[in-house]
Amino acid sequence: MQLDNFKSVVSKYKVIFFDAFGVLKTHNSLIPGIEKTFAYLREQNKDFYILTNDASRSPDELAASYHRLGLMDIVPECIISSGMLARDYLANKITEGTVAYLGTEASAHYFETLDLKTLPIRELDLDSISDVNALVMLDDEGFDWNTDLSKTVNLLRKRNIPVVVANTDRMYPVSSSRVAIAIGGIADMIESIVGKQFIRFGKPDAQMFIFAYEQIKNQPEIHKNQVLMVGDTLHTDIFGGNKFGLDTALVLTGNTQAQEAEVRIRSTGIIPTYICVSAVV
Amino acid sequence: MQLDNFKSVVSKYKVIFFDAFGVLKTHNSLIPGIEKTFAYLREQNKDFYILTNDASRSPDELAASYHRLGLMDIVPECIISSGMLARDYLANKITEGTVAYLGTEASAHYFETLDLKTLPIRELDLDSISDVNALVMLDDEGFDWNTDLSKTVNLLRKRNIPVVVANTDRMYPVSSSRVAIAIGGIADMIESIVGKQFIRFGKPDAQMFIFAYEQIKNQPEIHKNQVLMVGDTLHTDIFGGNKFGLDTALVLTGNTQAQEAEVRIRSTGIIPTYICVSAVV
Amino acid sequence: MQLDNFKSVVSKYKVIFFDAFGVLKTHNSLIPGIEKTFAYLREQNKDFYILTNDASRSPDELAASYHRLGLMDIVPECIISSGMLARDYLANKITEGTVAYLGTEASAHYFETLDLKTLPIRELDLDSISDVNALVMLDDEGFDWNTDLSKTVNLLRKRNIPVVVANTDRMYPVSSSRVAIAIGGIADMIESIVGKQFIRFGKPDAQMFIFAYEQIKNQPEIHKNQVLMVGDTLHTDIFGGNKFGLDTALVLTGNTQAQEAEVRIRSTGIIPTYICVSAVV
Amino acid sequence: MQLDNFKSVVSKYKVIFFDAFGVLKTHNSLIPGIEKTFAYLREQNKDFYILTNDASRSPDELAASYHRLGLMDIVPECIISSGMLARDYLANKITEGTVAYLGTEASAHYFETLDLKTLPIRELDLDSISDVNALVMLDDEGFDWNTDLSKTVNLLRKRNIPVVVANTDRMYPVSSSRVAIAIGGIADMIESIVGKQFIRFGKPDAQMFIFAYEQIKNQPEIHKNQVLMVGDTLHTDIFGGNKFGLDTALVLTGNTQAQEAEVRIRSTGIIPTYICVSAVV
Repeated sequence: MQLDNFKSVVSKYKVIFFDAFGVLKTHNSLIPGIEKTFAYLREQNKDFYILTNDASRSPDELAASYHRLGLMDIVPECIISSGMLARDYLANKITEGTVAYLGTEASAHYFETLDLKTLPIRELDLDSISDVNALVMLDDEGFDWNTDLSKTVNLLRKRNIPVVVANTDRMYPVSSSRVAIAIGGIADMIESIVGKQFIRFGKPDAQMFIFAYEQIKNQPEIHKNQVLMVGDTLHTDIFGGNKFGLDTALVLTGNTQAQEAEVRIRSTGIIPTYICVSAVV
Repeated sequence: MQLDNFKSVVSKYKVIFFDAFGVLKTHNSLIPGIEKTFAYLREQNKDFYILTNDASRSPDELAASYHRLGLMDIVPECIISSGMLARDYLANKITEGTVAYLGTEASAHYFETLDLKTLPIRELDLDSISDVNALVMLDDEGFDWNTDLSKTVNLLRKRNIPVVVANTDRMYPVSSSRVAIAIGGIADMIESIVGKQFIRFGKPDAQMFIFAYEQIKNQPEIHKNQVLMVGDTLHTDIFGGNKFGLDTALVLTGNTQAQEAEVRIRSTGIIPTYICVSAVV
Repeated sequence: MQLDNFKSVVSKYKVIFFDAFGVLKTHNSLIPGIEKTFAYLREQNKDFYILTNDASRSPDELAASYHRLGLMDIVPECIISSGMLARDYLANKITEGTVAYLGTEASAHYFETLDLKTLPIRELDLDSISDVNALVMLDDEGFDWNTDLSKTVNLLRKRNIPVVVANTDRMYPVSSSRVAIAIGGIADMIESIVGKQFIRFGKPDAQMFIFAYEQIKNQPEIHKNQVLMVGDTLHTDIFGGNKFGLDTALVLTGNTQAQEAEVRIRSTGIIPTYICVSAVV
Repeated sequence: MQLDNFKSVVSKYKVIFFDAFGVLKTHNSLIPGIEKTFAYLREQNKDFYILTNDASRSPDELAASYHRLGLMDIVPECIISSGMLARDYLANKITEGTVAYLGTEASAHYFETLDLKTLPIRELDLDSISDVNALVMLDDEGFDWNTDLSKTVNLLRKRNIPVVVANTDRMYPVSSSRVAIAIGGIADMIESIVGKQFIRFGKPDAQMFIFAYEQIKNQPEIHKNQVLMVGDTLHTDIFGGNKFGLDTALVLTGNTQAQEAEVRIRSTGIIPTYICVSAVV
């Protein structure tokens, strides 16, 4: 396996898309040295965006979390989250009534400015659901799985409404050696039980990439071959970037570890343009 | 759709296999008139067995639950539960150490007589798992889904051990209009997250039918064409019975309702030998 | 099921996206009266695009096929085919070597202007594959399934290269009562056998809709709520349109027949904004 | 990875179940030295059975093929093929009419003694299918894939009949470095296109093991813990053997190669009791 130098790779592109978890940060800290990368990008006047399958918090809160860790370059405007796509969908498609959701109250802030009532499944009364016009799955916290997941199944058996999944990840790290089940994994279970087709937003889906790409197009014309996608996960970051027509760099600081990278690339057929030790320049 | 008379159907067979839920009972009562069926079977000296994907209780407890509802013909010896297959598997394949489980303490009684320690996931300490040699999924109750399901995922990432699912159902009725997620649905989610292949016991798998069939073979020689499988669910009861080589009767008192039976049979390609209004003679 | 009048529906939108098969034409003729729809669109100065999962022919040839049937309004510029997305992908991502393909020579015309050699699998020699840098699946015709599909599997076991599927449909009509297996169905089989992840272009994937949407944005600013997607298939046309944020109209002249539309909408959870008898005004 | 000595392993069991391909033979020859294993079994008076997912030839023909390669110990009576299970199913469940099949005429010999007409799909006339009461998929040879697979799809759209798949393998070796698509792979494609549930016979399904186990039970009582299953494939031989309650030995002469065995066992969670270099004593 040939490793590429991240700085030389980045130097070839005008705009960089980054995944967050496993690329910029771990469960509780920054990837050591990552602030040098952003200093370099600033210095070189390169644009960057963070594409994250995290709908648990707003771009403002996500940016604040980087600031607390000491990375000040990341502003809300450069964060593209799957929650923003879910918000867009509701804005376009649901004009009235109540949106039920699985997640914390913080995650429901995505829908605050819409003319829709929001209701956590926790507070839903199954005997009065006639104005529930959509269900959104945002976060794995904020509800009681023992009761509220069956309640969700019953809602979907009685009301034929669109179901939006704002985070396609099935698990996420909570410590250096442990993971937790993410709302994307729960969504898969419920979709399979009720037999309906849910609408998923998040990498590798093209809509996430087009959303980010449209932000940069507000600047003087950029072509796809001037954009690099950097990620630690083959099935989301690299597959999605490739399919959208971008060059891609796999980094080995997260889900894909050095000793298994080659086997996984061969067995999945998902081939990054570059492989780098990390996203640190 | 041509409906067959259940009494004439049953009269052609020497042994009857029944599903439980939706055939003999609902979530809280017997199917009205079902006691007449068992009186008829007794009178005609026909044998019967109940094949149930229910590993939450032992055959003794299951029989007692029929007695409480007034159906005295059902004795523990005629109940074949998927929990018994799980017990058999552990007896054959796991010789030492601890079996971790998801379920109530009642469900763990299946493993009491084995020389194995049992431990609910709820009490498992992820830092001391070196003697956990199998995981069994028995019931959806008896644990905290918010914490214990992620704990299960972490156990399976650290220990490469067989995982046995003793109930393949994905949901079950809790009232006339509501359902709850069953342990089989949870098992699908965890299997897909950890990417390992679980061992499932229960209809439609052939092992459930061979287990019941071996009980009857202790009597003078019976051929498969003298056995009828009666059930309310196409994918488990009817598909499993057909595949095992039995004639099958679909009844319309449970999962498959009269107005949709024909469409479902055509769309799934699972074809019962007979369709009857109910299992009441 | 409430039916909507197609003319009133269309009158509310500025741009119409149409599926082709089952909406504008059948296997060998136009949907009777469909030319009136295009006269109306022309008269009302509404724009339209045809989004088709058909990569067997170029937009020029596709447009010519409508002209031969007497529908002169359809010009190559308004046809968006999944083959165009496959072409874009190769242009962005594959810079040298040979592209092997399954399909007719006509289908390979999509790649003619690229600086890449194209080679039908039929002519591929498995002993000299070192410069094959991508495989594209275009059409179910033009090769011998008995030999060339196993050859494809062997190629993908030896070369870890991207595989592009330019038509996600699994079957297509060849007469009023018969269908044929499409290249999308073959692609599913080969993907599952080799265990790699293929790159699919075509509805319901967002990239197809983005591609069409970008064409209209060359005109004065259009918002998604001014665009209507019209199709006969819930899983591709309606699901894809909904997810992209468009209003959608299901027509009953193709894959979804009047008597089953309601059941299918309920069982899939894919809900069109409107249901119309046909796309004829 | 600890390797076990095959002779010491075998010495602990009374009956041995062998997979064929990759354990006893390759695409065109015996595994070198395998005749010593059968001399040892004869000498030690141990029983053995060959469990093969090969329905292309009868046990007589399969035994003859071993004789031609110089292995005389294998008699038809010790061969258990998935074709025998398919035959059993038809004998129990289909009492009249025509059985259509995909496969060679040799493969259709399984059904010769049944009171059923057999008809290759190749000769089927789609306008006269009213007496076709089952479809059996036996072998990948004997028909034209380009035309006969679509014909099969059309048959299954018009007739709601059971479909039996007598070989669940998706590919098989045709030389030391090449494979071909097997009928099991084709069956998966057609099942997914028509959306019906097919009945599959072959490892890892329990019915294959039950069938073999019932042969030995004709001898003085044997317990499952006296039977060893030997195979080269984790998902069929080892998973099926484990689930049935047998001890299992993985050999490294076929589908699972030495350098990847450990990774595959860990990633699939399918754990053989033993790992041996080969089945040669």
